Amino acid sequence: MSLFVQKYGGTSVGTVERIEAVADKVARFREQGHDMVVVVSAMSGETNRLIGLAHEIQETPDPREMDVLVSTGEQVTIALLCMALKKRGWDARSYTGGQVRILTDDAHTKARIQEIDEQHIRADLHAGRVVVVAGFQGVDEKCNITTLGRGGSDTTGVALAAALKADECQIYTDVDGVYTTDPRVVDSARRLEKITFEEMLEMASLGSKVLQIRAVEFAGKYGVPLRVLHSFQEGPGTLITLDEEYSEMEQPVVSGIAFNRDEAKVTVVGVPDTPGVASRILAPIGAANIEIDVIVQNVAEDKSTDLTFTVHRNDMAKAEAILAEVAKEVGAKGVTTDDKICKLSIVGVGMRSHAGVASKMFAALAKDGINIQMITTSEIKISVIIDERYLELAVRGLHSAFELDVEPTESR
Amino acid sequence: MSLFVQKYGGTSVGTVERIEAVADKVARFREQGHDMVVVVSAMSGETNRLIGLAHEIQETPDPREMDVLVSTGEQVTIALLCMALKKRGWDARSYTGGQVRILTDDAHTKARIQEIDEQHIRADLHAGRVVVVAGFQGVDEKCNITTLGRGGSDTTGVALAAALKADECQIYTDVDGVYTTDPRVVDSARRLEKITFEEMLEMASLGSKVLQIRAVEFAGKYGVPLRVLHSFQEGPGTLITLDEEYSEMEQPVVSGIAFNRDEAKVTVVGVPDTPGVASRILAPIGAANIEIDVIVQNVAEDKSTDLTFTVHRNDMAKAEAILAEVAKEVGAKGVTTDDKICKLSIVGVGMRSHAGVASKMFAALAKDGINIQMITTSEIKISVIIDERYLELAVRGLHSAFELDVEPTESR
Repeated sequence: MSLFVQKYGGTSVGTVERIEAVADKVARFREQGHDMVVVVSAMSGETNRLIGLAHEIQETPDPREMDVLVSTGEQVTIALLCMALKKRGWDARSYTGGQVRILTDDAHTKARIQEIDEQHIRADLHAGRVVVVAGFQGVDEKCNITTLGRGGSDTTGVALAAALKADECQIYTDVDGVYTTDPRVVDSARRLEKITFEEMLEMASLGSKVLQIRAVEFAGKYGVPLRVLHSFQEGPGTLITLDEEYSEMEQPVVSGIAFNRDEAKVTVVGVPDTPGVASRILAPIGAANIEIDVIVQNVAEDKSTDLTFTVHRNDMAKAEAILAEVAKEVGAKGVTTDDKICKLSIVGVGMRSHAGVASKMFAALAKDGINIQMITTSEIKISVIIDERYLELAVRGLHSAFELDVEPTESR
Repeated sequence: MSLFVQKYGGTSVGTVERIEAVADKVARFREQGHDMVVVVSAMSGETNRLIGLAHEIQETPDPREMDVLVSTGEQVTIALLCMALKKRGWDARSYTGGQVRILTDDAHTKARIQEIDEQHIRADLHAGRVVVVAGFQGVDEKCNITTLGRGGSDTTGVALAAALKADECQIYTDVDGVYTTDPRVVDSARRLEKITFEEMLEMASLGSKVLQIRAVEFAGKYGVPLRVLHSFQEGPGTLITLDEEYSEMEQPVVSGIAFNRDEAKVTVVGVPDTPGVASRILAPIGAANIEIDVIVQNVAEDKSTDLTFTVHRNDMAKAEAILAEVAKEVGAKGVTTDDKICKLSIVGVGMRSHAGVASKMFAALAKDGINIQMITTSEIKISVIIDERYLELAVRGLHSAFELDVEPTESR
């Protein structure tokens, strides 16, 4: 008998029929004798409907009242799921974030969980009840309703699993697991049985939008085994585990390939090679709330250098306008931009201990005649910026070069 | 400077535009320096939408979860109204029933308010904020969400006014006050400036569905001045006050005429005149959850009597079926029913001290050739059951006989 925390997203509970299907699934686990805590999102479309009402009134709605408003979405779902469970003969009890009590800071619309009082839930589990908790929400110290921001239901699930020391936190989504790369690009993309938290973080932040990054960080920090599964298909999904579990296995060097087509490249050309210049260039970009992803600066030649970074494509024009001024001030030669690029990364904890991964990657790209515009690396990731026209070609070449379509000899 | 508690029902906050109109109204009071607490219902249609979702899942939805579900309706409105007030430059803060804390018993879907902690609200008023409270809801001692049942937002308003010792509780509705009778029946029906709690209770329970009965009882008990006003029209409305305020005025004998077309008459004929027989007849009706309104039994002739009572028309067939059995058991001759009747009442605290009101009423009906089938009286009310065909004729005749269309010489 195990204790499972299951999380179902908005699509999984999008209609009354789907809520009934979730109740069936939960009931099957309960029948097997497992203790069940279920975290649910708002029915799909509901959060957007509520936000729409707010925007009819205020262009920038008051954050405290926004949280009061949108938190009703999950509250509707917990009640309906409990009714569906009761209809099936299982005792169930719903909890809002405030009722649990999931204590957060007071940063409305993007609050962070500080503490969970799991006593009521434990008592209900002990009494044989299924506990259904509203995701995405909590209360601050003064009992104001807070929300964790979009996708925060994953974090609620992981935080509850950590507080309850659950055997597994199962995140039900519309994909059946984490893949070596996007199956729409590479036919032979393979579902991973296991992946480490670190790899998952790199995959998630690079565009494989399966799980909320904060939830993965949280799970990694507290060592909560996390499993991604499909809501309506059977299957083992992908287990996200601590690094150590890999230690004695035959590890593949590279676990997956992530990519992102939403970025644009901005280069400040001929920047004088003096201390503090990078900061003077990037500070106004940050002040304008433009998020920067990759930053590359190479050694100076002729006492000047080029500083290149990437931003979201929607922000490119704004960044260019800001930098036109800044370039003059710092004495740079000018600014160039390019939004016809993409970012491509290979991810794997195995590359820590393996030399030659980078050269293998670059060789594979060269073989297909693909020019590399920028390179950055981290401990378990190598990213390159290339012309977006070559994205599919590059992903397929790398997937094959690192033999990702081949099941590892030993089960991972 | 006064402290006002205002309550706006579902129609008054039915759209974003109407919520903005309510914000304008509240802002005008605030501008005049008044302290404002606003109680709101769910946007019209929302509660029914939520109940519909529940019924898709359970025929008889779980009461605890039903309250979790429907309480979201008011929570949406408080957030939107606060946004609209903030947009107008007024600081405002929303409270759910649980946040206030409005403590109720644990009778889900029909809970009763036990205690209100008004400390947070007082602090907000002191800080110059408009306080917006979700009507119709509270929490029990274990922090389970409860609701007060349909129309419970009126009760929330009155209870808050009592707890805060407000100068007036203003209930905004879709009528501009309490009338001497239904203006759709009598053209010359007149809005009353004032009415006593007792009169209002008799008027309300008899079909003038302006206010929830429990709210009026509550206001009477705690001496909260209650005013009924129109949400979107200007005007003083009708003030509902304590009886004593009438004492030194020139009082009209009758304040209003109420009527009800929803009832049916059930008579058990030839009931043996023995102790306990009425109870043996009515107990199974109560056990079947059929509500009884008027009961009449006259003195026995020939050691048998007739017992007549009225029920809702929808319950008549059920009552008849039950009584067919019961009549045999108690040795009665049989059961007759009639759903082509209506109940008509004249109401007024003035009739306490005036003889001859009943005879004046009966004479007015006789003048129009209307036969009286049943009569019951209370201290401030006389009710008759007549053929429903004569309802309009009777109401108009009585309205004129008691000169209700004439403004009293002294202001009431």
